[in-house]
Amino acid sequence: MDDLLVARLREGLPVEAVLTDPDVTVAYARDRAGFCPAGVPAAVVVARTVDQVRHTLRTATELGVPVVPQGARTGLSGAANAADGWLVLSLARMDRILEIDPVNRIAVVEPGVVNADLTRAVQVHGLTYPPDPSSWEECTIGGNIATGSGGLCCVKYGVTAEYVLGLKVVLGDGRLLRTGRRTAKGVAGYDLTRLFVGSEGTLGVVVGAVLALRPLPPPQLVLAAEFPSARAAGEAVCAVMTAGHTPAMLELMDATSIRAVNTLLHMGLPPTTEALLLIASDGPDPAAELSALAELCTAAGATTVVPADTVAESELLLAARRSALVALDAVKGASMIDDVCVPRDRLADLLEGVAAIGARHGLTIGVCAHAGDGNTHPTVCFDPADADEGRRARESFDEIMALGLELGGTITGEHGVGVLKKEWLARELGPVGVEVQRRLREAFDPAGILNPGKVL
Amino acid sequence: MDDLLVARLREGLPVEAVLTDPDVTVAYARDRAGFCPAGVPAAVVVARTVDQVRHTLRTATELGVPVVPQGARTGLSGAANAADGWLVLSLARMDRILEIDPVNRIAVVEPGVVNADLTRAVQVHGLTYPPDPSSWEECTIGGNIATGSGGLCCVKYGVTAEYVLGLKVVLGDGRLLRTGRRTAKGVAGYDLTRLFVGSEGTLGVVVGAVLALRPLPPPQLVLAAEFPSARAAGEAVCAVMTAGHTPAMLELMDATSIRAVNTLLHMGLPPTTEALLLIASDGPDPAAELSALAELCTAAGATTVVPADTVAESELLLAARRSALVALDAVKGASMIDDVCVPRDRLADLLEGVAAIGARHGLTIGVCAHAGDGNTHPTVCFDPADADEGRRARESFDEIMALGLELGGTITGEHGVGVLKKEWLARELGPVGVEVQRRLREAFDPAGILNPGKVL
Ligand SMILES: Cc1cc2nc3c(=O)[nH]c(=O)nc-3n(C[C@H](O)[C@H](O)[C@H](O)COP(=O)(O)OP(=O)(O)OC[C@H]3O[C@@H](n4cnc5c(N)ncnc54)[C@H](O)[C@@H]3O)c2cc1C
Ligand SMILES: Cc1cc2nc3c(=O)[nH]c(=O)nc-3n(C[C@H](O)[C@H](O)[C@H](O)COP(=O)(O)OP(=O)(O)OC[C@H]3O[C@@H](n4cnc5c(N)ncnc54)[C@H](O)[C@@H]3O)c2cc1C
Repeated sequence: MDDLLVARLREGLPVEAVLTDPDVTVAYARDRAGFCPAGVPAAVVVARTVDQVRHTLRTATELGVPVVPQGARTGLSGAANAADGWLVLSLARMDRILEIDPVNRIAVVEPGVVNADLTRAVQVHGLTYPPDPSSWEECTIGGNIATGSGGLCCVKYGVTAEYVLGLKVVLGDGRLLRTGRRTAKGVAGYDLTRLFVGSEGTLGVVVGAVLALRPLPPPQLVLAAEFPSARAAGEAVCAVMTAGHTPAMLELMDATSIRAVNTLLHMGLPPTTEALLLIASDGPDPAAELSALAELCTAAGATTVVPADTVAESELLLAARRSALVALDAVKGASMIDDVCVPRDRLADLLEGVAAIGARHGLTIGVCAHAGDGNTHPTVCFDPADADEGRRARESFDEIMALGLELGGTITGEHGVGVLKKEWLARELGPVGVEVQRRLREAFDPAGILNPGKVL
Repeated sequence: MDDLLVARLREGLPVEAVLTDPDVTVAYARDRAGFCPAGVPAAVVVARTVDQVRHTLRTATELGVPVVPQGARTGLSGAANAADGWLVLSLARMDRILEIDPVNRIAVVEPGVVNADLTRAVQVHGLTYPPDPSSWEECTIGGNIATGSGGLCCVKYGVTAEYVLGLKVVLGDGRLLRTGRRTAKGVAGYDLTRLFVGSEGTLGVVVGAVLALRPLPPPQLVLAAEFPSARAAGEAVCAVMTAGHTPAMLELMDATSIRAVNTLLHMGLPPTTEALLLIASDGPDPAAELSALAELCTAAGATTVVPADTVAESELLLAARRSALVALDAVKGASMIDDVCVPRDRLADLLEGVAAIGARHGLTIGVCAHAGDGNTHPTVCFDPADADEGRRARESFDEIMALGLELGGTITGEHGVGVLKKEWLARELGPVGVEVQRRLREAFDPAGILNPGKVL
């Protein structure tokens, strides 16, 4: 079977595009999620053209071989994992920026373009592509689209979905579908573009995208506010938003993540604080806005409020926040990052609940959050060599999702479902939701070859 | 058949909810689009609760009777039209605002809430619901969602799709589906919420919505810039956007629409100008922004640039723009409004092309446009008593869509497809697009009772 697959693939692909050496293909087995099964793919296709993708999918459909599309495999839900005998389709080498159009404020790209590369390329034109996952130096636009990824700037500038105007998608049977448009607006037919955003490689393979850009905002200044409790920090978040501010960033780090970052990077974040808010302004007068924000923080109980004086200082605080996940991973050698999003006035309830879950299981759980959006990343630290601790980590991870749903939230704000949260998705959607989503999936992929067993 | 339908409906509905008197039901036959067939419905259900909607749809499915959901019937594509023997389901009386939550910046509403009523209700909390179709004093949130409607503010604040976080939808078979969430972000499963936006009553009936709100911006100031040609005005639009401005409004009126508004409302708009741009700023220093915008307009060839000195003056200019459609309708007694959206750097090409089409057919075509988004409303004026003129109006309407597609645009920026643009949708989507959209529709409505024959 594997031989037939490889032979057929090679009929339409150059030799170097089809990888079969197990020492090589093993590198394509999984993304960055823990606790997710992964197997050895039968082959890896590294596509460079739309036609190569079409040939690959036609072949997979003919032979009934499941396909998993992959970008940079930085995903955190196992959505990019292969199983034994599957075909991996890597889009990482379709990485050209085809067009940057400053008048219409759009970019046309291939799916393998790395997020930060696009951001840098459009900056030259005074533009920006806002969605900024912390993995931006690695992750691809195709992966961002397929997961609907977020980042630090979303509280002001929105998530990936807001920036995808049109797509070129290869369907499971190899047909090429164009969705959306190059124009700022359009309502012709069902919004398939938005449907592909967040579809985690289960409806089709993105081979091209028209993205909306924005004028580059002025450099942001950041304020660091220390709080004696998660509750006080949560109140400050609500106060900021209720007062009508929309900061360019509104992030939270708890004591555990602050300590982890200090240990790893010696950054000198305030070590005794219970919760740190990082709030940015990129408005016309950032210093003035920050001083208004500082007052709100103080009124909510902040013990210390320090505005960064320079852009360089602000960048440092941002870098600290961005490195939290890596730092927490180093605490005990492994970690599981959760992604529960709650209404922002339930943020403090979630943080307190997570602390209680950690205490009950005797585990260290650090929390960072895109606090302005209520999107939290409780990260359970554990020793990968300790099976019992691993089990408890997984249990607490699930309890955090249950708590998120109880508080009116969702099990995933930006990382997606993959295999990690499949059962939990069913709880969130309910039976009618699951049934409708399944039928929709079948409508796009009747053969069931696109990333089967993922999402639902 | 009609008797059986009415009897079954009445089993689960109060007497006053089921209308059958033809003198009454005829009022529910059609929306505001011309050239669209409409028939006499068998009955009209005016629902007041979710359960009434569910009973209505269950009954329709059992008996195989087509259903058309209706809001305020201000639609411009015939999407809300009934056919003989159909059931009309009016959501206009499900018009309660259930919740306004300033901390989380959301509103929870029933579908029949009138757009302007919501805007006024949230204003009290210092918030706004941006999408502002010119029909806002009449049209409903349910209709706005089902058409994906836009308005004047979209160039800065985006369209309806950006503001719908979650929905309650009754499916064709009467099951209740919840989509989305109350949180700012979320990627759990396929984005069904966005899929229902713009689905024109063909996938399900919206019975509730969670909407995102924004802080109320300061009152806007408007600049009026007169241009000697459409091309010069188009260049000014590109210059404004390329310079990094995002005005709160960037509207265009051509000479024909200016004259029509002057005739109808004696508004004193500049009568000799070829194209008028109305540009608004609601930034922290609107006067300064307007003077920068004025310079860009002058550099692009504006003959006169007049900033409104007061908010009241600005409101007047806005009112003039909002009344353009009604004014153009009065020119010859009837009109057909088109809704072609092109990349903004093709705006001038579209305007010149429309003028040529008008000349060729000997017709008056006035153009207003949400110019910043490239979304134009060429409005063909004709005498409804003159059959030949009517025929030419329809022909020129189609030619305008062909031109829009040629220029890389879409046949509809915000009004939707309905019955008016069905054939044109197929041209825009191409055969693969049509096939995928059809399958998707079948997945939601296998019985085919939801607004059949509309869209595709
Ligand atoms: C250190 C770190 C920090 C992170 N920070 C954030 C963050 O702040 N915000 C956030 O949202 N995420 C974050 N992530 C998660 C991850 O980076 C994002 O989900 C990202 O979008 C994945 O992109 P990728 O190219 O690595 O995709 P992959 O991991 O390769 O794939 C992700 C999913 O997309 C599918 N896919 C990939 N390419 C295509 C394509 N062309 N067509 C169809 N399907 C495709 C895959 O099948 C899979 O389902 C972080 C991850 C790490 C490791
Ligand atoms: C003077 C005038 C100015 C206008 N200006 C604009 C403008 O600036 N921008 C713009 O976008 N549009 C504009 N429109 C068009 C129209 O107002 C919008 O399309 C509006 O969204 C329709 O809302 P409605 O409540 O009247 O819906 P209807 O016309 O009743 O219905 C429209 C569609 O939505 C469906 N529908 C309605 N309610 C529901 C529901 N609860 N569930 C499922 N489906 C439903 C119907 O079946 C139909 O397909 C204008 C119209 C007029 C007459």
